[in-house]
Amino acid sequence: MALPEPGNGIVPWRTIAREELADCRVFTLKKVTRESPTTGRRGEFFYIDSNDWVNVVAVTEAKELVLIRQYRHGSDEITLEIPGGIVDHGETPADAARRELLEETGFEAGTVVELGRVRPNPAIIDNWTYTLLATDLSRRGDQSLDDHEEIEVELLPLAELDQLLRAGEITHALVVSAFLWYKLHCIDNPAHAVEQAQ
Amino acid sequence: MALPEPGNGIVPWRTIAREELADCRVFTLKKVTRESPTTGRRGEFFYIDSNDWVNVVAVTEAKELVLIRQYRHGSDEITLEIPGGIVDHGETPADAARRELLEETGFEAGTVVELGRVRPNPAIIDNWTYTLLATDLSRRGDQSLDDHEEIEVELLPLAELDQLLRAGEITHALVVSAFLWYKLHCIDNPAHAVEQAQ
Repeated sequence: MALPEPGNGIVPWRTIAREELADCRVFTLKKVTRESPTTGRRGEFFYIDSNDWVNVVAVTEAKELVLIRQYRHGSDEITLEIPGGIVDHGETPADAARRELLEETGFEAGTVVELGRVRPNPAIIDNWTYTLLATDLSRRGDQSLDDHEEIEVELLPLAELDQLLRAGEITHALVVSAFLWYKLHCIDNPAHAVEQAQ
Repeated sequence: MALPEPGNGIVPWRTIAREELADCRVFTLKKVTRESPTTGRRGEFFYIDSNDWVNVVAVTEAKELVLIRQYRHGSDEITLEIPGGIVDHGETPADAARRELLEETGFEAGTVVELGRVRPNPAIIDNWTYTLLATDLSRRGDQSLDDHEEIEVELLPLAELDQLLRAGEITHALVVSAFLWYKLHCIDNPAHAVEQAQ
């Protein structure tokens, strides 16, 4: 396949200075001054510096998706999502996926494989979100939530995923992206996930 | 279909106070103090307040996708994306989609329909991103870029989209989400987009 060639005319800008503006606990606001090698123009750009994030497509033996419902402080509304969170220092994305799945839902994953990763927003955020597929699930008991987390677990038959997406019930872009990786690698091309797990 | 029922136990938190911490030109950093009606616990939460964003799946008569390559200051790298940007005050998402497509690529859209919308990150951002499908394209001439924009336009045969996604060449989560809406509504279920356009 002829993928588009890297653009000859587009080059990274040179970083002149960087400054931390605010420590927001789960992320840091920074300002960077950069100069374009193409035009010589300088500008100041604001962005969010954060550890990587993970989210987890967890599928039970009965072919159900493990979803969570929670209140979100950014959008000030209740959303239907998949488990996920921040990759702690010293963790791999797979470690974080296992931990978040267990904490938020009580499910332990026998098998975890990476399906893909995305830049949440390369214009203003500097991290990656990794999507992991978790299978061979077993119930280990109750949730173990952070102080400010209130989460309900819901199981959805996998066969109803497209209908849920079409109905606009899933709004979180990183969850929508996770499901595209899942569909591309596990539904349209199931050999891929099996190969990765072996 | 039995969609998961709204969780009985999950309720929105009460807003006690809100404060602007930093004006970052294309977004504002805010801090909100909220209280859980369930536990009575209070907490401070940081989030990004922004106008809505749009992105545009633009398809030529020759069944090519209009992609753009640009340098991104958040991730400090060059990305392959679709056209898009901020919805200005007084614009509809469709207005903004037509304007951004024209400015960034020189293509004018004869027809624009909404395919779906996502929350870029409901945990820490308060806006929506709308995905619009643009067709009946005609070349109107050159790009009309903002001071700090350097953008190259590339055309990709639509038939190669899945391969591009599988190869990990598209990393922007909002672009990946846009392509899931496009696949669900226009490839898996082409009647939908036609109905919307009529």
